Amino acid sequence: MLVGSIEAGGTKFICALGDENYQIKDKAYFPTTTPEETLGKVADYFSQFAVEAIGIGSFGPLNLDPHSPKYGYITSTTKPYWQNTNFVGYLKQGLHVPIYWTTDVNSSAYGEYVVSKRKQLPVDSLVYYTVGTGVGAGAIINGQFVGTIGNPEMGHTLVKRHPQDRDFTGNCPYHQDCLEGLIAGPTFLARTGKKGENVPLSDPVWQIIAYYLAQAVMQATLILRPNKIILGGGVISEELLSKVRAEFAPMLADYVEVPDLADYISMPAIEHNGSAIIGGFALAEQALWSNQK
Amino acid sequence: MLVGSIEAGGTKFICALGDENYQIKDKAYFPTTTPEETLGKVADYFSQFAVEAIGIGSFGPLNLDPHSPKYGYITSTTKPYWQNTNFVGYLKQGLHVPIYWTTDVNSSAYGEYVVSKRKQLPVDSLVYYTVGTGVGAGAIINGQFVGTIGNPEMGHTLVKRHPQDRDFTGNCPYHQDCLEGLIAGPTFLARTGKKGENVPLSDPVWQIIAYYLAQAVMQATLILRPNKIILGGGVISEELLSKVRAEFAPMLADYVEVPDLADYISMPAIEHNGSAIIGGFALAEQALWSNQK
Repeated sequence: MLVGSIEAGGTKFICALGDENYQIKDKAYFPTTTPEETLGKVADYFSQFAVEAIGIGSFGPLNLDPHSPKYGYITSTTKPYWQNTNFVGYLKQGLHVPIYWTTDVNSSAYGEYVVSKRKQLPVDSLVYYTVGTGVGAGAIINGQFVGTIGNPEMGHTLVKRHPQDRDFTGNCPYHQDCLEGLIAGPTFLARTGKKGENVPLSDPVWQIIAYYLAQAVMQATLILRPNKIILGGGVISEELLSKVRAEFAPMLADYVEVPDLADYISMPAIEHNGSAIIGGFALAEQALWSNQK
Repeated sequence: MLVGSIEAGGTKFICALGDENYQIKDKAYFPTTTPEETLGKVADYFSQFAVEAIGIGSFGPLNLDPHSPKYGYITSTTKPYWQNTNFVGYLKQGLHVPIYWTTDVNSSAYGEYVVSKRKQLPVDSLVYYTVGTGVGAGAIINGQFVGTIGNPEMGHTLVKRHPQDRDFTGNCPYHQDCLEGLIAGPTFLARTGKKGENVPLSDPVWQIIAYYLAQAVMQATLILRPNKIILGGGVISEELLSKVRAEFAPMLADYVEVPDLADYISMPAIEHNGSAIIGGFALAEQALWSNQK
């Protein structure tokens, strides 16, 4: 069996071809230009192969409501040319296969979920945070995505200020003191004059970032009680995760039981930012099954 | 059909008998003394009637893990005599009917959920916060309770301090600046020297409480994306809800769409704190059905 997976990002689209074991058989990259050009290349790419279904994890915001006439659209994005784009509709014109449509963070979360399941780990629910240009998260409970009236925006919950970070303005144009505004990639430049990858781990800014991430983990823990919380994206490293665990433990104060923190708060199991593509394969299979029902 | 419902609180147990329309046919109150005495009275009460199943919403913490040998227990409560009490096991000795076991906030949430469903309101998911001696919440997504490794403890997430509330110590022995520590009933006495019911609505403390509740609504909104968020319990009034809505709107800043705030953030539809008892009837039915499968 061959299935397709699309990770649609603001800079590039990654398209991949996989088998029933989620092994990548082929892969292609297309720059994100206009919907006509980029989606045209995506459709041409998949039409070369006998894919049975496609899973899409896309940048957003998205319309995910199957009852809406705008289901399958990218809606109010700030990305030029992509506002109000009928992503799924465009692909369905050329590719007559079932399509699973979700957010990039949801497909990443799903990739990690299915890999845990295949390893027979006791993971029925997990949260996947990604920290890069922005902060997003996907959440799965008992194999289902969380979010009834729309997808979660867990990167925009408010957090308590770190005592040494009271003067930083925050980078989110919508919210004062939300997670994204205080920890996303661009905040490193704003705070230190350097990009995150150039800020040494000895810099106190990492302690501040860890404090905010620990609050995100606290929120996810107390609201969702998942088996696992994964932190991924350009800003995350094992060193940072150690700091997050060290901040989180006294913050939770053993109020509820959680798994061993080294397992509970972890990097993605799928390396090289590949979670979304693997998730797309698994979601393509889901689309196929639900189509066959 | 007759089903039983138990709302087990730290002060009293409410037991009720209901029909298939969740109409209360009989009701009894027993003070919470020792497990033997109180559960004995509960068992005696229900053994008078031909109940087919019982739903329990209990104070906690509880063991809700069906795979655990301690399933059905109240575990590490501070309530004298009730630590490590096999609540479900005790009742099953005398009453040979299916029992649904969950938290008091979950049964309240479920009561509100089934009432919405019966009114054919578009509510597939909801969150029920209760603010009284403590702060707790139950969350339902697509008819299922949230919480894989244990029940949520949404009353203990951290919140940003209100600028006029920086000096208040907070009342939670576990967490600095958690919701419960800043808004539960006892905080009124600590802040104003008066009990909450005696603090006039003109007192600025209500604005502070509304600010923290708006942050709770913000967390629930961005993490769970529910159709509805209900605030119940002794501290809540329509006047307070108006303040919460007024704080929440600029906080969210239209970042995601939510229903009209007058519907979205509301008091319980079931009056006189009756949500948990109605929820217990519906959960008893669930226990019956899953037993018949």
